[in-house]
Amino acid sequence: MRVVNLAETFARFSDHWSPKIVGELNDCHVKLVKLVGEFVWHAHAAEDELFLVIAGTLRMRFRDREEIVRPGEFVIVPRGVEHMPVADEETHVLLLEPKSTVNTGDAGGARTVTDLDRL
Amino acid sequence: MRVVNLAETFARFSDHWSPKIVGELNDCHVKLVKLVGEFVWHAHAAEDELFLVIAGTLRMRFRDREEIVRPGEFVIVPRGVEHMPVADEETHVLLLEPKSTVNTGDAGGARTVTDLDRL
Repeated sequence: MRVVNLAETFARFSDHWSPKIVGELNDCHVKLVKLVGEFVWHAHAAEDELFLVIAGTLRMRFRDREEIVRPGEFVIVPRGVEHMPVADEETHVLLLEPKSTVNTGDAGGARTVTDLDRL
Repeated sequence: MRVVNLAETFARFSDHWSPKIVGELNDCHVKLVKLVGEFVWHAHAAEDELFLVIAGTLRMRFRDREEIVRPGEFVIVPRGVEHMPVADEETHVLLLEPKSTVNTGDAGGARTVTDLDRL
């Protein structure tokens, strides 16, 4: 039941697109991730994902539109919905998603991260 | 897949200890709540709860200690752990917890809120 300070924890890593586990509850993980540039189009068959922006700006692309998510804002991407996160500048995001979630979802490929660090 | 702005949503209500549902994912609700004063001692038999402080200061009392949670910080209270939230000034908190969660947990009583509003 430790208190997690988001800014202090973001300061402990610098790599991009590599989520760090900072908490767990109800079979979900709370993760912090730094984004910059474009990710890959993907969907998660069985997992809904929450993206809460802490710093920077997240452009969440869907096949039919794009949502801009700024600090103090969140968006939930339901299971099955294709999405591609894009960040024009370094952007800090808190993720909440089931423990089973793989970052690249059904896309797989070189940007898949397994064995996530815990901070 | 709407974008939820926390500050704008907090501005839409003023009552205390009455969580508002602002999102749902994976059988959980994202809620916003304004706290001031003391709540009641309680535990949740089957639900872990996340408290992310957006404004103010949360004093989360446990039977053996107290944790101070400030803006940009969160604490997770595991199922079964007795806790009492206290806020000396008005404090804005984002909650994440299973949809089955009742605010007063096993304590029940007059401060129980059912039929939560959705914002």
